[in-house]
Amino acid sequence: MPEPSSLFLVLDLVGTFAFGLNGALTAVRAVRVDLVGVLTLGMTTALGGGIIRDVLIGSLPPATFSDLKYLGAAAAGALVAFFLSMPLERFTTIIVVFDAVGLSVFCVTGATKALEFGLGGVQAVLLGAVTAVGGGTLRDVLIRRVPAVLVSDLYAVPALVGAAIVVVASYAGLGSLLGVLLASVTCFAIRMLGVVFELQVPSALGRRGTEDDGPEPGGR
Amino acid sequence: MPEPSSLFLVLDLVGTFAFGLNGALTAVRAVRVDLVGVLTLGMTTALGGGIIRDVLIGSLPPATFSDLKYLGAAAAGALVAFFLSMPLERFTTIIVVFDAVGLSVFCVTGATKALEFGLGGVQAVLLGAVTAVGGGTLRDVLIRRVPAVLVSDLYAVPALVGAAIVVVASYAGLGSLLGVLLASVTCFAIRMLGVVFELQVPSALGRRGTEDDGPEPGGR
Amino acid sequence: MPEPSSLFLVLDLVGTFAFGLNGALTAVRAVRVDLVGVLTLGMTTALGGGIIRDVLIGSLPPATFSDLKYLGAAAAGALVAFFLSMPLERFTTIIVVFDAVGLSVFCVTGATKALEFGLGGVQAVLLGAVTAVGGGTLRDVLIRRVPAVLVSDLYAVPALVGAAIVVVASYAGLGSLLGVLLASVTCFAIRMLGVVFELQVPSALGRRGTEDDGPEPGGR
Repeated sequence: MPEPSSLFLVLDLVGTFAFGLNGALTAVRAVRVDLVGVLTLGMTTALGGGIIRDVLIGSLPPATFSDLKYLGAAAAGALVAFFLSMPLERFTTIIVVFDAVGLSVFCVTGATKALEFGLGGVQAVLLGAVTAVGGGTLRDVLIRRVPAVLVSDLYAVPALVGAAIVVVASYAGLGSLLGVLLASVTCFAIRMLGVVFELQVPSALGRRGTEDDGPEPGGR
Repeated sequence: MPEPSSLFLVLDLVGTFAFGLNGALTAVRAVRVDLVGVLTLGMTTALGGGIIRDVLIGSLPPATFSDLKYLGAAAAGALVAFFLSMPLERFTTIIVVFDAVGLSVFCVTGATKALEFGLGGVQAVLLGAVTAVGGGTLRDVLIRRVPAVLVSDLYAVPALVGAAIVVVASYAGLGSLLGVLLASVTCFAIRMLGVVFELQVPSALGRRGTEDDGPEPGGR
Repeated sequence: MPEPSSLFLVLDLVGTFAFGLNGALTAVRAVRVDLVGVLTLGMTTALGGGIIRDVLIGSLPPATFSDLKYLGAAAAGALVAFFLSMPLERFTTIIVVFDAVGLSVFCVTGATKALEFGLGGVQAVLLGAVTAVGGGTLRDVLIRRVPAVLVSDLYAVPALVGAAIVVVASYAGLGSLLGVLLASVTCFAIRMLGVVFELQVPSALGRRGTEDDGPEPGGR
């Protein structure tokens, strides 16, 4: 990523740490995994979205995988989850907030990087969302959950909106800092409103599946 | 893809639309998913195979992801499935036919592109099949089904045969149009014969798994 | 891979064959799959780790996918599993040994190639482990098992140790042959000790998942 401001770097690392923590916690609660498993799942959650984005735009090796800062932040989050999974159950709220920070930062960095690599606006929006939700989706596949993004309360939508704001701001010639701030804050706000009011995306009309074992609300 | 003829472009878009429709329908029937989920699963089914192929041959960003025509056709198919999933249950036959069109076109484009990128014949056959069945396999993983290609009636075989005809025709110096036509028609015919006569690939000798919950016949 | 010695090439092909055999056997035992499925799962197990590594370092098309020797060894292993799955049940020990050979060779080739492509030491260790366990993880996802690497007795740890020895030996300026031998033998020894004494990596403190259906010990 091309010289993000210091504030942005801090937020990005906080988001990576939060995704690593959250991803590992979700894993510990869902499956019997050992230390290697917890680290694998936490780091997959934290780094997977950025890796998928970088593979798709051909920026290899992936930035978040190559940078020791990101590997360290992701591993630290997973280790905290491993050693403190019991006490952490009391702090669900702060984990959800951290996770929303990660979502907001990742959709912005994803869309920004896609634009820098010359992709079109629609693709940049999709890649922003993939960056934000891809890691959690990989983790859910590994622990055999239906991915939260498919069934959960507003999770992909704020990421799509945040990425779209980045693209529109870029096309409108807004300063990149302003666009980034607006996009992150909007994504964060929609996500938190979704959590507080348990907002849902409409489900398919007609027949629905019989599997009703999606992730519990707020459990992500 | 290098200037496919107009007919081929139309077939390719029809195949993409059919895969988007079919992928989303399968998802709606198997899991409780919201609108975002239906779009994600339909587009994954329609574009995933081409994306895997392009990642493997290093042609990044992937063609089907970068081209708005393909993104639009895939999304349109998924949206039709979302809004019409009830009435569509009456049209199973036409959906299976559309799906076979997609299979036939994708195995041909996949093998052709692999040859153009200098891969060997065996690899081109494998990549043709991966292009044809990769998207559906990704979708099945996301909705936690054993991928249809592993257990279903003739699905990968016609794609392998179609891709092999492309490779042989190319080595034999046949005009590319003739090879493409022969390959697509053969793949389509084998697939439809497999559906009509419920042909099966032989299963492993001896012990078989106890999980008997593969996809229902024709449900793919 | 850049001119591995003949011994190393032989070991690499033995490892690929063993992973193809083992991957297909695991699949046959877990799910009802047909011949195409067995080949797909065996080849995924044998080649998947190397493919993920090559995608991540941007070495495309992937070496193990492009080389007919590797495709042939993987397919041969899968075919043996398909036709001999019943009698093979008596040879669990030799299959576990072969699998440990594959693990040892793959973690070494993975780490070596990552270093050659200029990645840092930590990344090379991770990529060595991904090369060794990535294929089996893909297979487990396809047949809907919780990946063995997340829950099983010592499996990722010997691969991480082997890859780390490669990196340390390279930094210490040891001849590459010595480093490779030391790394492979250590990985193999740890893996076999883990099998014999059923060693476990510690699990997360506190709450554990209720799913207790991980792979049976030694079944991988």
